[in-house]
Amino acid sequence: MSVLVAIGDRDNSKLVSQLQARLPNIHIEQYSQCEDFSKVEFVLAWYAPKELWAQLPNLKVVSSFGAGVDSIDLDLLPEHVEVVRIVDSQLEVDMAEYVLTHVLAQKLQLKEYYQKQAATQWKPNRVLSHNKVAILGFGQLGRACAQRLVDNGFSVSAWAQSHKDVNNVTMYYGEHGLNEMLPNTDYLVCLLPLTENTAGIINKDLLAKLPAHAVLVNAARGQHVIEADLLQALNSDSLRAATLDAFDQEPLPSEHPYWLHPKITITPHCAALSDVNCVIEQIEVSIQCLTNGTPLKNRVDRTKGY
Amino acid sequence: MSVLVAIGDRDNSKLVSQLQARLPNIHIEQYSQCEDFSKVEFVLAWYAPKELWAQLPNLKVVSSFGAGVDSIDLDLLPEHVEVVRIVDSQLEVDMAEYVLTHVLAQKLQLKEYYQKQAATQWKPNRVLSHNKVAILGFGQLGRACAQRLVDNGFSVSAWAQSHKDVNNVTMYYGEHGLNEMLPNTDYLVCLLPLTENTAGIINKDLLAKLPAHAVLVNAARGQHVIEADLLQALNSDSLRAATLDAFDQEPLPSEHPYWLHPKITITPHCAALSDVNCVIEQIEVSIQCLTNGTPLKNRVDRTKGY
Ligand SMILES: NC(=O)c1ccc[n+]([C@@H]2O[C@H](COP(=O)([O-])OP(=O)(O)OC[C@H]3O[C@@H](n4cnc5c(N)ncnc54)[C@H](OP(=O)(O)O)[C@@H]3O)[C@@H](O)[C@H]2O)c1
Ligand SMILES: NC(=O)c1ccc[n+]([C@@H]2O[C@H](COP(=O)([O-])OP(=O)(O)OC[C@H]3O[C@@H](n4cnc5c(N)ncnc54)[C@H](OP(=O)(O)O)[C@@H]3O)[C@@H](O)[C@H]2O)c1
Repeated sequence: MSVLVAIGDRDNSKLVSQLQARLPNIHIEQYSQCEDFSKVEFVLAWYAPKELWAQLPNLKVVSSFGAGVDSIDLDLLPEHVEVVRIVDSQLEVDMAEYVLTHVLAQKLQLKEYYQKQAATQWKPNRVLSHNKVAILGFGQLGRACAQRLVDNGFSVSAWAQSHKDVNNVTMYYGEHGLNEMLPNTDYLVCLLPLTENTAGIINKDLLAKLPAHAVLVNAARGQHVIEADLLQALNSDSLRAATLDAFDQEPLPSEHPYWLHPKITITPHCAALSDVNCVIEQIEVSIQCLTNGTPLKNRVDRTKGY
Repeated sequence: MSVLVAIGDRDNSKLVSQLQARLPNIHIEQYSQCEDFSKVEFVLAWYAPKELWAQLPNLKVVSSFGAGVDSIDLDLLPEHVEVVRIVDSQLEVDMAEYVLTHVLAQKLQLKEYYQKQAATQWKPNRVLSHNKVAILGFGQLGRACAQRLVDNGFSVSAWAQSHKDVNNVTMYYGEHGLNEMLPNTDYLVCLLPLTENTAGIINKDLLAKLPAHAVLVNAARGQHVIEADLLQALNSDSLRAATLDAFDQEPLPSEHPYWLHPKITITPHCAALSDVNCVIEQIEVSIQCLTNGTPLKNRVDRTKGY
């Protein structure tokens, strides 16, 4: 049995040697230098080449290298293959801090004040009392953000797929629930996984249901947002602002209209960065579960896609 | 008996008629149109002309029009005159939100990201784990900020004059305490009143005791800061950044070096604005206390100056 590291677009030799040091009895290889594909039972993947999967007759487990599994084309994996993801407790702390900071920054209009400062303009903005946050997704990250926002006096709603019992967050489900939640939203925070059902969900129909003073914070994936629809909403004053951490193409191309848009705040996919040591530890555990035949942790529901 | 409104540099006729409507039996006048100075027993003051005080033989109470009394020259008032200030519970909520937002914005380096965005630059900053906040002053505003920061996982210290019993904030007193607190500070928040003892307190000696990665947030008064010393500390990289809401001269003059300084964030004295209705209500109560002979609320200790 061997483990294959298939992470596109970067040198993985350091990662491979770190994993090898922890698992001396397991053969660990990098994608293009793999000696014998038939021995590979475990793949650590992030934007792995699509043609890889058909070459692995004995594949049993694929682990994502991050919290999302959207970089793995689940449809190309045989049905019996199990998929796991990274769940890093520091990630939710960092994401909650990112979301709280950017919601507060939008509430206190920090970007407007930076712009006024650059123009040597002394002029207080109208104070905004908006305090209703709606979160799309109520998983590891959505939950942590909701709690942090509640602790800071925000009134929080969230949208998920399966029913949840929660006290201090108003839950909504399904399309009907979404339509009910949106008009009552000052800040819309996207923390959905990227799936067939969620790609392009932030489009002109959704944006039209938000109040014109609403602000979008997208800390999930760029593909959740239809870029032209977002720009149109901002340009027609039917959305106040947007803070974006994730983009369709990353790094965001230099000619992209987002860059210099006065109502858009860009951060370079830094909302919550996985800690490499924590990731390596979880991969080690997953490989051990496979070799020992014990149940895997942080499994993805392949029918749901997340 | 009459009440005199002496608030410089603005038209107070609306305020006078609002007060008059609440207190129909009391004669309320504006400074320069005052008919008989000898009848004035109560003055509502904010940067009142210095020559006013000697003209008021029967003055009993002066109320500040805001939280601070530094706009009133206490030395010019006869000893028996009582001074009160505005204590507005919304003020502390807004100040706590301002301080939390700007500490988080400095931690997540929002201004650097806005600058990078303006330069079309995709480059994550080094993540900062700094979480030690020290607050100068632990009165109405300092206390509220401390609690909010503690609730958000910051480790909080505060510096005051008289001993306090608090659980979750490490208290320091006197010059010795200040010297002990400063080297252990990531974010220094000034919420002192402006008095003889606190004017110019943020000078090169104090700044030299902070770590070079420290950030100053001044939400009190511009006169707490020696401007040249602050600029020198920022320019020599012995202070990381500063967020300033209050300035020696307001509006900040357009040629001031703060405006375009890349490490300075300016807000136009908007951290916490008194709610006019709340202020009027408190002035009404103070006037009633005077006329009924009952004890005044929110009295200032004239020996301390705040
Ligand atoms: N920007 C960054 O730095 C960064 C860092 C890490 C992760 N992320 C992104 O954040 C995403 C969320 O992470 P997570 O760990 O919180 O995921 P998670 O634990 O899998 O939670 C996903 C949530 O979305 C809900 N959901 C999924 N599809 C839905 C649908 N069609 N309708 C309604 N609700 C739906 C789920 O509902 P149920 O609870 O009912 O299943 C669940 O509450 C990741 O997939 C990744 O894309 C971004
Ligand atoms: N930027 C804005 O929008 C805005 C809005 C409102 C107010 N402010 C400013 O904020 C200031 C603070 O307001 P507040 O209501 O919190 O005042 P406060 O209740 O009077 O509290 C003042 C605090 O400072 C401490 N202090 C005073 N002199 C000191 C000294 N020499 N050494 C050590 N500690 C000292 C006091 O110590 P003790 O507790 O031991 O007496 C007290 O804890 C106001 O004076 C005003 O200038 C700014």
